[in-house]
Amino acid sequence: MSHPVKPRPISRNRLTSAIGPERLREISTAFAERRAGYSLESPFYTDPGIFAADMEGIFGQHWVFAGSIAEIPEPGDYLTVDYGPYALILLRNDDGGVNALHNVCRHRGARVLTEPTGTTGNLVCGYHSWTYSPEGALIHASAPGEAGFDKGCFGLKRAHSRVVAGLVFVCLAEEPPEDFDEVAQIFEPYLAPHDLGKVKVAYQQELVEEGNWKLVMENNRECYHCDGHPELACSLFPTWGLTDETVPTHLADVWQRNLSAEEALRTRCDRYGLPFEVVEELDTRVAGIRISREPLDGAGESFSATGRRLSKKLLGDLRDFRLGRCSMHLQPNSWFHFLADHVITFSAFPVNERQTLVRTTWLVADDAIEGVDYDLEKLTHTWKQTNLQDKNFVELCQRGAASPAYEPGPYMKSEYQVEAFISWYVERMKEHLA
Amino acid sequence: MSHPVKPRPISRNRLTSAIGPERLREISTAFAERRAGYSLESPFYTDPGIFAADMEGIFGQHWVFAGSIAEIPEPGDYLTVDYGPYALILLRNDDGGVNALHNVCRHRGARVLTEPTGTTGNLVCGYHSWTYSPEGALIHASAPGEAGFDKGCFGLKRAHSRVVAGLVFVCLAEEPPEDFDEVAQIFEPYLAPHDLGKVKVAYQQELVEEGNWKLVMENNRECYHCDGHPELACSLFPTWGLTDETVPTHLADVWQRNLSAEEALRTRCDRYGLPFEVVEELDTRVAGIRISREPLDGAGESFSATGRRLSKKLLGDLRDFRLGRCSMHLQPNSWFHFLADHVITFSAFPVNERQTLVRTTWLVADDAIEGVDYDLEKLTHTWKQTNLQDKNFVELCQRGAASPAYEPGPYMKSEYQVEAFISWYVERMKEHLA
Amino acid sequence: MSHPVKPRPISRNRLTSAIGPERLREISTAFAERRAGYSLESPFYTDPGIFAADMEGIFGQHWVFAGSIAEIPEPGDYLTVDYGPYALILLRNDDGGVNALHNVCRHRGARVLTEPTGTTGNLVCGYHSWTYSPEGALIHASAPGEAGFDKGCFGLKRAHSRVVAGLVFVCLAEEPPEDFDEVAQIFEPYLAPHDLGKVKVAYQQELVEEGNWKLVMENNRECYHCDGHPELACSLFPTWGLTDETVPTHLADVWQRNLSAEEALRTRCDRYGLPFEVVEELDTRVAGIRISREPLDGAGESFSATGRRLSKKLLGDLRDFRLGRCSMHLQPNSWFHFLADHVITFSAFPVNERQTLVRTTWLVADDAIEGVDYDLEKLTHTWKQTNLQDKNFVELCQRGAASPAYEPGPYMKSEYQVEAFISWYVERMKEHLA
Repeated sequence: MSHPVKPRPISRNRLTSAIGPERLREISTAFAERRAGYSLESPFYTDPGIFAADMEGIFGQHWVFAGSIAEIPEPGDYLTVDYGPYALILLRNDDGGVNALHNVCRHRGARVLTEPTGTTGNLVCGYHSWTYSPEGALIHASAPGEAGFDKGCFGLKRAHSRVVAGLVFVCLAEEPPEDFDEVAQIFEPYLAPHDLGKVKVAYQQELVEEGNWKLVMENNRECYHCDGHPELACSLFPTWGLTDETVPTHLADVWQRNLSAEEALRTRCDRYGLPFEVVEELDTRVAGIRISREPLDGAGESFSATGRRLSKKLLGDLRDFRLGRCSMHLQPNSWFHFLADHVITFSAFPVNERQTLVRTTWLVADDAIEGVDYDLEKLTHTWKQTNLQDKNFVELCQRGAASPAYEPGPYMKSEYQVEAFISWYVERMKEHLA
Repeated sequence: MSHPVKPRPISRNRLTSAIGPERLREISTAFAERRAGYSLESPFYTDPGIFAADMEGIFGQHWVFAGSIAEIPEPGDYLTVDYGPYALILLRNDDGGVNALHNVCRHRGARVLTEPTGTTGNLVCGYHSWTYSPEGALIHASAPGEAGFDKGCFGLKRAHSRVVAGLVFVCLAEEPPEDFDEVAQIFEPYLAPHDLGKVKVAYQQELVEEGNWKLVMENNRECYHCDGHPELACSLFPTWGLTDETVPTHLADVWQRNLSAEEALRTRCDRYGLPFEVVEELDTRVAGIRISREPLDGAGESFSATGRRLSKKLLGDLRDFRLGRCSMHLQPNSWFHFLADHVITFSAFPVNERQTLVRTTWLVADDAIEGVDYDLEKLTHTWKQTNLQDKNFVELCQRGAASPAYEPGPYMKSEYQVEAFISWYVERMKEHLA
Repeated sequence: MSHPVKPRPISRNRLTSAIGPERLREISTAFAERRAGYSLESPFYTDPGIFAADMEGIFGQHWVFAGSIAEIPEPGDYLTVDYGPYALILLRNDDGGVNALHNVCRHRGARVLTEPTGTTGNLVCGYHSWTYSPEGALIHASAPGEAGFDKGCFGLKRAHSRVVAGLVFVCLAEEPPEDFDEVAQIFEPYLAPHDLGKVKVAYQQELVEEGNWKLVMENNRECYHCDGHPELACSLFPTWGLTDETVPTHLADVWQRNLSAEEALRTRCDRYGLPFEVVEELDTRVAGIRISREPLDGAGESFSATGRRLSKKLLGDLRDFRLGRCSMHLQPNSWFHFLADHVITFSAFPVNERQTLVRTTWLVADDAIEGVDYDLEKLTHTWKQTNLQDKNFVELCQRGAASPAYEPGPYMKSEYQVEAFISWYVERMKEHLA
């Protein structure tokens, strides 16, 4: 974490002026009246005013996963991230950390960096060549004869940033929520063995889903729909999500195989000192998290049809391919799979009330050679397909939510993480609007 | 008519919450102040709030023509219809009737049927496989170990539906307007001889017109612009719409030909027991209607350049090709031509305040063979061209209506049906907003 | 100037009803609180309500440059111009003047003329053939038997128009601002020698820029960004915009060259009786203007890489190619370059709050022959490139302005014309909203 320049607050009172006090009261009431255990009322998925409130109260206040250091491996490497009305630069600095800067020139408001990714020294705005240091300080404004102009007042606005286990987080609030430190301590031991400092980007996919960001997240937080994912189903035990009490008799054999694999994985994790137990605090803290390691079906190594490895190179110091998947869910916008041979990160970036960009990144060991150690098509197949299927599901819901015949429906037990996401969301918004 | 499950009301108070009480008052005032005999003020064609009100007060309350049984001939056949925010399934049932169901899953709101048309037994939502009977009852929700979940509470919402003379109507109101029975009795005798139970779809065209749905309807309700329809003009007498008093002297010959054709058609209808007289109740009842039979020019059989038949097979039990056209106009969104050799149905489905889908369907005898009994290109030529010309007219008006220089203009006498449409619309909306 | 039919006022109270009194108060407050010397707050560039106010208070009230008579050289020639919600016809009349008519039929509101340009006698609406004289009088409405219909009440609405030195201006206000006469007297002597009565259109370009119209104008009003225009830089002295005090020592030589060229141009202008001095009243009067003549670098004749002429034919009665450029800036939406061999006119027509059409027209002597006297590609190269570069700058600012991190930035001294534009705009709007 590095921000010598204190981040300046933005967006104070924006919401009130943007949507008016009366509408704000209506929105607050809608949050207060949310029925627990049920999906949200239609406007939460379709109303631009509630979207604006979400951008302020969720994406303007909480830690958001923005990418990994594998995307910006060297000092000066940057990536840009846009969500809702925000435009950000994440720039790798000389200390190994990341500077988060608003991508908005302080002169006339031009977007400073225009490429999605790249490498830069100082940041030069293309409009009038105002030049900022990597920390955002204005170091040159070519205005001849400009008296009384104080460059110190016109640095790029900064945001808070954190790098934990190679994941880059950004927070736009003046005072970020405090419990992220605790959460970082929770997930760091799970992720560190996969060592994101020694991986490279094999592939990145960007999908714009025609659905509200919360529908994207709800869809991610349950596998009740996983019959709709035939490729992914090869990796998951058919008993996934069931318990001793709920397993149907015809799956008794599978259940035993599942339990054995779980036991074997536990043993293996104990041997290598890898944490294994589930930590589930999705709606019991501000920086909501769920993390666990679980076995995969078949060979149990990776997301392939057979369960066999998809890259021949183990990550970090791992000594075994058969480590199942370590899965992490973070509120508000990200999920992850850490396997022995590769890592997949997912982030949902809201575009507007009815569109969301989902960015998926496949990471492999930095010494893995495409075509030799891994086949890119095979590496990405399962989740490319799964993402497309999920996009379809989200879009079906967005269309349905617009109908006056839509009313909130009940989340099933297997959808408890959806409920956790929604109740987390509602609580955060109630706090913000209070 | 078949709805064992009582349709559940939807959308109560939606409008108020969607657009706010102050805006609602403004809209109500705008309706109250409409100047009779003149086109509407600009916002009626351009304002999303008034569009929302239209969807609630017109398309949410009144009988809407949705299609014909020729489009869903067998039990299990369905078509989907979307207008404004609504999404509906019209499913042919075992009794020969049609079930109207909201296409919104009661679990998470996904669109249940995703194809425009098809055949189905039970309706299975593609997201989590919730399964509904053709009547909409939830018969399977694969949620293991779900205690206290009452399937009876989560049936698909239903709408009222009617099949009259093969035409399918749907009404989303809790209590549909009562006078539709009377209207059905009016038009059934005109249409029955064409027997839609024995026709098939020859062609269906969908045109999205860049105009408000009311401009589409206004355009349909007058032939003052018919100089802009050269193909259609072959079928209409050049004296169409004129009277003894208004016929110019240079058309005296045509007028005599017209009167003779009318007399001959009357004689022929009397012989076959076909109703002939005009019934005109477009704005004098809630389910506004106009129906009449009138001669066509030339051979007087069909919409061809010469007036000759376009399909060799007579419809139903008709014994003569020379029956002119039986034309029906229904409020709020449909019009029809019934000829001896084919039928054309038209429906306008609003998309948003500035776009309307016009669906046109050509029906021929079910034993007519394409390429033998009819040439598809010739069958559809006149109205394909006419529709494109009308689309252009509607779009010119939509663009003009946006200008501050636009002000309501006077409807001419030959546009009395436009006035009838608009005054019907305004009355219905005033009742609804009261 | 010719309008025998008194222009009828439009749009009175439109704004109030369109956006509500509360929002109107907020907008008025925003204007009142504008910080001098700084760019505007974000909503001025992004809010549809403020855009609607701009269209009413600026484009509905002030003289707008619409085109030149070279675009409509003969009586009956017309061009259509659309900006914001307005649609206009500019029709050359028999007196050499221009009739400005709203392109909205008084019957049902259809757009009357549908082509961008053309030649017409009477104006016939394509919908129901209502026919208007070139002055807008309704002369034929083919409505048989229409009693009590007074054609005199349904002429096309007119706007004020002016032709000054071949430039066509239109004003939609009931009472146009009075000081335009004075401004016409200011610029007429500068432009007349280039004689737009004897030029022709060589090329016209339309660019839709994804930015608010004020960002387009701000960008036009400074050359602080001219490092981003490599082609244009060939024509401008590298010391452009500098003064004795601000010229850096390494440009001392260039500065001397610049001063010499200026002196030589002054001498030449004196010899030919061409006005030379700068007149700068951009925000000190209602019809804001800046006009001057200045030397170009290199050969000093035209916008080519070497400074040499781009057309072999001198304009009007000019006797010398080396006349630099006479540049004129008019509020609210236009700028111009008058050279000895060609003229370029630019107008910015707002589309909506985030899009602006920039129309650029290259004019050459009417006896210049393409391929012989001028090469079209070379003639248009510098400003085609410059326009594309400017489009990019505008779009970078539009994107930045949407961010909550955007805040108004300071205009530099070299951007004094931007400040003049913005303060002119703010003053006009305050007057209008008062």
